[in-house]
Amino acid sequence: MKIAVVGAGRVGQAIAGSWARLGHSVTFGVRHPHDEKTHQLLASIGQGTRAAPVHDAAKAADVVVLAVPFGAAEEAIGACKGLKGKILVDCTNPLLPERAGLSIGHDRSAGEAIAGWAPQARVVKALNMTGAKNMANPKYPEAALSMLVCGDDADAKRVVAGLVGELGFDVVDAGPIEASRLLEPLAMLWINLAFKLGNGQDIGFRLLRR
Amino acid sequence: MKIAVVGAGRVGQAIAGSWARLGHSVTFGVRHPHDEKTHQLLASIGQGTRAAPVHDAAKAADVVVLAVPFGAAEEAIGACKGLKGKILVDCTNPLLPERAGLSIGHDRSAGEAIAGWAPQARVVKALNMTGAKNMANPKYPEAALSMLVCGDDADAKRVVAGLVGELGFDVVDAGPIEASRLLEPLAMLWINLAFKLGNGQDIGFRLLRR
Repeated sequence: MKIAVVGAGRVGQAIAGSWARLGHSVTFGVRHPHDEKTHQLLASIGQGTRAAPVHDAAKAADVVVLAVPFGAAEEAIGACKGLKGKILVDCTNPLLPERAGLSIGHDRSAGEAIAGWAPQARVVKALNMTGAKNMANPKYPEAALSMLVCGDDADAKRVVAGLVGELGFDVVDAGPIEASRLLEPLAMLWINLAFKLGNGQDIGFRLLRR
Repeated sequence: MKIAVVGAGRVGQAIAGSWARLGHSVTFGVRHPHDEKTHQLLASIGQGTRAAPVHDAAKAADVVVLAVPFGAAEEAIGACKGLKGKILVDCTNPLLPERAGLSIGHDRSAGEAIAGWAPQARVVKALNMTGAKNMANPKYPEAALSMLVCGDDADAKRVVAGLVGELGFDVVDAGPIEASRLLEPLAMLWINLAFKLGNGQDIGFRLLRR
């Protein structure tokens, strides 16, 4: 396929390199297609990968991959001009500076509300991200499901991690209670996959380590 | 440990059963500890599991597990009365009726913003939820990482799923573009795990199937 990768950062380079090696025709859409940095990039990837102004790259492509920071996305889309009927792959995340969080939505959570209602308790968010059947048995043929756990009190989190581990889960520390903003969407994702998208309840997430 | 499970729904039953079999002292905190339904529940779990009013169960416990719907959480916490120093495990999710979404936060996403800026394109959210190193090589010793993909145009999503699969990912359909509200927090979670919580970038999520 003819693929335009708009943005030549680390993600753009990684996917462009793989697709080019697989035989796809890959063109980076960049502001300065002829500068030294771009030449070095193309040389390192090889495989006939090209660079062109964003508009030209997008125009010629079947699939346009938006691999720029979210803050640059609107301008990059404007530079593409007509994307009529094109497939546009959005790889962005609305990150705050220094990866402090997401700038869109996600500014509250049930976990934080619970902590506010129980100010004297040491609240740990856990056991929210999968279904009851997985809670009863998180051991899959392949491996154990992961359970992410977050909270502000390290001792409390350690105790809960122990109890969750005893259930058979691979326990992963997800940070402070504010991370409930991330664990609750993960639950919603599981719910959608299980109940709306036809996968059923015998699915679950595991964090792999290389 | 002495564990109070507040709420006797499916999740509460699953975890209470496992913990009781492991030798923990488990008491359900419920409104009606002596009704027929509760008796049947205790009989089915066995292992010395008891039921008590929420306050009594919480008072006697080392760890209080809040396994009620989020809408009932504030009242349940009130019923616990003093939770001073107690470990409170929050298993709730702020679900909308019929699991339509989350009622707290998560009402917008970059993916939807992108779709708004490119109204003529067929936007697919993909390749946002892990790092560049994993994009270049998503094959782990254990298995391939999963990549969740969402979008409103089925054909476009199929094409992108093909391209993402060629990178070596196990591709999972996460539904319409609105699911960007869930995939972006998943990215933030990966970022936190990799960069803030000391796991490094050689980690990633996989969806297991039983």
